[in-house]
Amino acid sequence: MSIIVLGTVALDTVKTPHGQRRHMLGGSAVHFSMSCRLFTDVHLVAIIGGDFPARHVDFLHRKGLVLTSLLRSKGKTFRWEGEYQGDLNSALTRNTELGVLLSFSPMVSESQRRIKNIFLANVDPDIQSRLLDSMHAPHLVGLDSMNYWIHNKRASLVRLFKRVDVYVANDQEARDLTGEHNLIKAARRLRALGPRIVLIKKGEHGVILSCDKFQFCLPAYPTAAVVDPTGAGDTFAGGFMGYLCSKPLTEVNLKKAIAYGTIAASFNVEGFGLERTSRLTLAQVNKRLQEFKKILRF
Amino acid sequence: MSIIVLGTVALDTVKTPHGQRRHMLGGSAVHFSMSCRLFTDVHLVAIIGGDFPARHVDFLHRKGLVLTSLLRSKGKTFRWEGEYQGDLNSALTRNTELGVLLSFSPMVSESQRRIKNIFLANVDPDIQSRLLDSMHAPHLVGLDSMNYWIHNKRASLVRLFKRVDVYVANDQEARDLTGEHNLIKAARRLRALGPRIVLIKKGEHGVILSCDKFQFCLPAYPTAAVVDPTGAGDTFAGGFMGYLCSKPLTEVNLKKAIAYGTIAASFNVEGFGLERTSRLTLAQVNKRLQEFKKILRF
Repeated sequence: MSIIVLGTVALDTVKTPHGQRRHMLGGSAVHFSMSCRLFTDVHLVAIIGGDFPARHVDFLHRKGLVLTSLLRSKGKTFRWEGEYQGDLNSALTRNTELGVLLSFSPMVSESQRRIKNIFLANVDPDIQSRLLDSMHAPHLVGLDSMNYWIHNKRASLVRLFKRVDVYVANDQEARDLTGEHNLIKAARRLRALGPRIVLIKKGEHGVILSCDKFQFCLPAYPTAAVVDPTGAGDTFAGGFMGYLCSKPLTEVNLKKAIAYGTIAASFNVEGFGLERTSRLTLAQVNKRLQEFKKILRF
Repeated sequence: MSIIVLGTVALDTVKTPHGQRRHMLGGSAVHFSMSCRLFTDVHLVAIIGGDFPARHVDFLHRKGLVLTSLLRSKGKTFRWEGEYQGDLNSALTRNTELGVLLSFSPMVSESQRRIKNIFLANVDPDIQSRLLDSMHAPHLVGLDSMNYWIHNKRASLVRLFKRVDVYVANDQEARDLTGEHNLIKAARRLRALGPRIVLIKKGEHGVILSCDKFQFCLPAYPTAAVVDPTGAGDTFAGGFMGYLCSKPLTEVNLKKAIAYGTIAASFNVEGFGLERTSRLTLAQVNKRLQEFKKILRF
């Protein structure tokens, strides 16, 4: 079963203690797709500017993504510039140029409207809502957001909560939204707002899943090779949603989906941008997943 | 096989969002003992002042601790006063009165010198070293410390590293000691200083074990009922060391020991001071351990 992902396609300039890269291909929808494609067909809904290099479009095509709803508009592609210092957990945003994102209105084809799995990666919640309006039969809807929207479009975001199955937050977002520091409690409060499944990502500390039937927690895959964490959360979500696309939402499947997301994210952080995930295969993911299981067993 | 624990016996005044308690029985050696006693005989090596309530001595005796090396001296018992705010992960120290700790020189009986398992809970590293000098046949030596000693007695602490098997640090201590933010790398650097096993405690985020043969990570038991985290790290260490006292240091046993420490600590945070751990039984620990295994399974 296919999935449709709405989000950003970006040109990222990133500096970490391991070096610097300028105008790399990035963005929430791209990082999501790079892991999700290992499990299913991914339809990308996003916008790029006139300055977007043709080689990046070729690349996305070669990776098997369906690009019929990748709009090209006059103006500049969305650009993000950030830096990670000693603490590779949190980025310092140096600059953001929204460019074509400012006038983005997602358009999908009639056949895409019938896709049942939807992921609303981080963009303006009003845009996320508009895409959801156009879908005929949503079955599994996932949502990500960020602090900017929590603070500036909270009402829109909270309305959206009632229409999604899975909300993926990071720890700070969960705390900001609920005013609750304890993440177990924060996850419960988020579920009370609508989503029946809440995932809280804690970066190097792993992830918590909360739903009405059970809870689950998983540490991150322990790696010393963190080069650039940009997109790790989206890569996680891509693995998680990708695994679930063709499976019922049972406890077993949700836990496996989190494990797949975790392993996908562990590859993402090992290189700048898409360096590592663009070459990733499901066999490599499965191999590391087995190692991870061994590490965790007691 | 018995264990000897050197550390503090304290009167703690603690404020958290859940309330306040004044002059509770606490201290590193006491919290350690409260979980360790579930597994083995615990010999306490510590000092108390003339003001130490007799009922606390009775309590420690009733809990089965061997108190022959609990010195009573003129002067005031060590007192700590701290507060936890929204973030229950880190304490703000309001006041510390070292009192009798200033003149503490540990003394152990001839029979205690033959005890093979030793835990050096947090006190001055020179005092920790002195106790170790007096032991005849150390077999398993664990060490804890704190930022104060890392900054003020670093040379003493680093000398001590060469004489211990297990060093238990929290994430901030590991980073301060090594200058390395990535905890997997920090653990490796700490092992290069002497201890063949390094545990890094991450509070609500669980624990990492690093040794030459394997690594292991475990999230904390997910609980919304955090009342007072004081002593959680010592309670963890008590469960960990207690489980290992009569077992070879195999991968399986080390992982189980970490799980036992994690579960013991999860009870500690549910009440002020020793409220919960003083009533704890091994059956309760085992029951929660089974639940935890179920939560983690995927």
